Amino acid sequence: MKKDIDQLMQKHNVDVIWVRGAATNNPTMYYLTGGGHITNADLFYRAGKTPILMHGTMERDEAAKTGYELLSYANYPIMDLLKQCDGDLAQATVLQFKQILSDLGITQGRVMLYGKQEISKVLPLIQGLSKALPEIEFIGDMDDTILLEARATKSPDEIERIRQMGVRTTTVVGKTARFLQSHPVGENETLIKADGSPLTIGDVKSQIKLWLAKAGAEDTEGMIFAIGRDAGVPHSSGNPDDPITLGRTIVFDIFPAEAGGGYFYDFTRTWCLGYASAEVEKVYNDVVKVYDTVVGELKLGVNAAEYQARTCELYEAMGYETIRQNPRLEQGYIHSLGHGLGLNVHEKPWFARKEDPSNVLQVGSVFTIEPGLYYPEKGFGIRVEDTWYVKEDGSFEKLVDFPRDLVLPMKG
Amino acid sequence: MKKDIDQLMQKHNVDVIWVRGAATNNPTMYYLTGGGHITNADLFYRAGKTPILMHGTMERDEAAKTGYELLSYANYPIMDLLKQCDGDLAQATVLQFKQILSDLGITQGRVMLYGKQEISKVLPLIQGLSKALPEIEFIGDMDDTILLEARATKSPDEIERIRQMGVRTTTVVGKTARFLQSHPVGENETLIKADGSPLTIGDVKSQIKLWLAKAGAEDTEGMIFAIGRDAGVPHSSGNPDDPITLGRTIVFDIFPAEAGGGYFYDFTRTWCLGYASAEVEKVYNDVVKVYDTVVGELKLGVNAAEYQARTCELYEAMGYETIRQNPRLEQGYIHSLGHGLGLNVHEKPWFARKEDPSNVLQVGSVFTIEPGLYYPEKGFGIRVEDTWYVKEDGSFEKLVDFPRDLVLPMKG
Repeated sequence: MKKDIDQLMQKHNVDVIWVRGAATNNPTMYYLTGGGHITNADLFYRAGKTPILMHGTMERDEAAKTGYELLSYANYPIMDLLKQCDGDLAQATVLQFKQILSDLGITQGRVMLYGKQEISKVLPLIQGLSKALPEIEFIGDMDDTILLEARATKSPDEIERIRQMGVRTTTVVGKTARFLQSHPVGENETLIKADGSPLTIGDVKSQIKLWLAKAGAEDTEGMIFAIGRDAGVPHSSGNPDDPITLGRTIVFDIFPAEAGGGYFYDFTRTWCLGYASAEVEKVYNDVVKVYDTVVGELKLGVNAAEYQARTCELYEAMGYETIRQNPRLEQGYIHSLGHGLGLNVHEKPWFARKEDPSNVLQVGSVFTIEPGLYYPEKGFGIRVEDTWYVKEDGSFEKLVDFPRDLVLPMKG
Repeated sequence: MKKDIDQLMQKHNVDVIWVRGAATNNPTMYYLTGGGHITNADLFYRAGKTPILMHGTMERDEAAKTGYELLSYANYPIMDLLKQCDGDLAQATVLQFKQILSDLGITQGRVMLYGKQEISKVLPLIQGLSKALPEIEFIGDMDDTILLEARATKSPDEIERIRQMGVRTTTVVGKTARFLQSHPVGENETLIKADGSPLTIGDVKSQIKLWLAKAGAEDTEGMIFAIGRDAGVPHSSGNPDDPITLGRTIVFDIFPAEAGGGYFYDFTRTWCLGYASAEVEKVYNDVVKVYDTVVGELKLGVNAAEYQARTCELYEAMGYETIRQNPRLEQGYIHSLGHGLGLNVHEKPWFARKEDPSNVLQVGSVFTIEPGLYYPEKGFGIRVEDTWYVKEDGSFEKLVDFPRDLVLPMKG
């Protein structure tokens, strides 16, 4: 949670957190500015002090809403510096930020950078500043020691926002099921539209996106609606031109965010329209068994990676191959059991880092459980996913309930 | 255009272009992979050779669609390296990419990085590789010498896609005008909904987003629908709770992209519902005069920055203050005349870099023209914007035509 940041900065010996970019689709800036509509800013966060937000002249009102100390880029006009540097933008920008850092009293210590940015633009700045200000050590945070660790536990407000996204998401999933079921079945067991042409994955996705937009949600990361062989390739998003036919597995994985780059929800169901083969049904039931066993064993204070290992153990006992046995495996259990989520669709707790104690499940953890089995060569794949969280009393709860029937019966 | 990349690499003495990240909302990866749904990749582009695309096991099908040489991350399992590095992810990732670069024969020369990425993740990798592989110089491209310069001119296909986005965008703008006009006017000249409550900016924006979604477009960067004083602050996006009233300027600036992170369009109209004051009308007409004068003077081979200077000159001759006179100006002409657009809403040609010859207008240039005047203290602002391009014969054409009346008459 936000209140942990100062302590984490101290623990990791970080003097300044410097966040760059827009608030939208840039989780760290979103988190620290409380959302908002800032399109470009530099935020300097120092433990125990009011953060300083650098903003464009035209965004002073949006910037003021944060309550932070404000500083305008207009105080450091790049045009003058460009002339000084014969039009070299990289050099001019280095001079500009050298002055800014010096005016803010940031002249030594460890400065940790965050922000979703174009690397080609940031790298020259940091390389130049490292030379111009050798007393400062500019560092990243690949191990998520500070902001992602702070964000690994959510406040009740954040959990409520994620749950609300879950309600919107599952409402859209329910509509999608009914939408599919309402279509007549034509030749070759293909769903057909009013005009007699086949209903395609592209049609279904367009409809889903409209429902999401109406619900104030955005499909920023691209949903998966994959059928048959594509359902057997976990990250295949589905071919928009494919028709929808009976009896084949549809993996529908939907992970929208609040409009404007806010909190995500993540949810998957596998459906067969009309009927399922005995083989698919058997594998489906095994996936559900593993899901139920694992969630029954969830415990406070356990590293999430333990459950990935446990899932492999359970599948192996059933006779399925797993990536634990072979990291290059392309069929069977070739996926991670889950991941944390929040302002990123994937964040802490990670399910693959046993060594890292910050991935233990704790009060405020929000994470997915999504065991699956994939057989692209056999033309099917199965995944069942819900988002879970740890309540204040240490118990585990699914954020939103939703039926998990494999077969969606068709009319008539 | 894409075919210019090899020559630009040679000119700037770059051996390898290394692009990181997803294809969506990451223009360089989108451009070089032809769109698609890749959620994570590393692309190595060497002049005159087939590019190499590193992909996750689960995305082999999406990756194969590029026609590039493929290499799976599974060949470089991070887990083994993590054990070797006592769980230090930054160190393990450096070892992983040291091996990858060496296997690809990239052991010296200049490697230019691109990709919209979390800095906290990339910086430790590049810092580590710079130490581990001192024969390689890792560089950015703040001056847009290669990819943004290649992308500064568009192929006829790209222009057609931008025009199609323009058609969708202006269709939605037309619907928005009729939507506003269809509302009855209640007390205090406020537009009211069927339930008698005031129509708000938030209501209008939700409706616009729905229309965009239906048209296969996304409002990824956040539109501006600002009224009164907010219209006078060029980047204020508008307060969602504000009611919509007659006689005040509404700046409606809409810049959606093709769904999935494709090409943008950019368009602005300023409206007054029912009536406009004489002062607003006078300023509006002056903005239109400047717009028409400038587009009448557009010429092949001229640096776009000349037109920013010319716009300042024209406004100053009319008695308006401009940022040319005072870079910290907060009212008057405080904006840039325009910017290139394509896979970024802002890209080359830039209108503020006289020194840089790559900002000259040339065949295939696509750019906005958007002179405005802003008076937040007086409670109004005005901007009129269309997207223009340079045809193969060297002439200039607006991509999509749309009326630019200031006053939208209300019913009755």
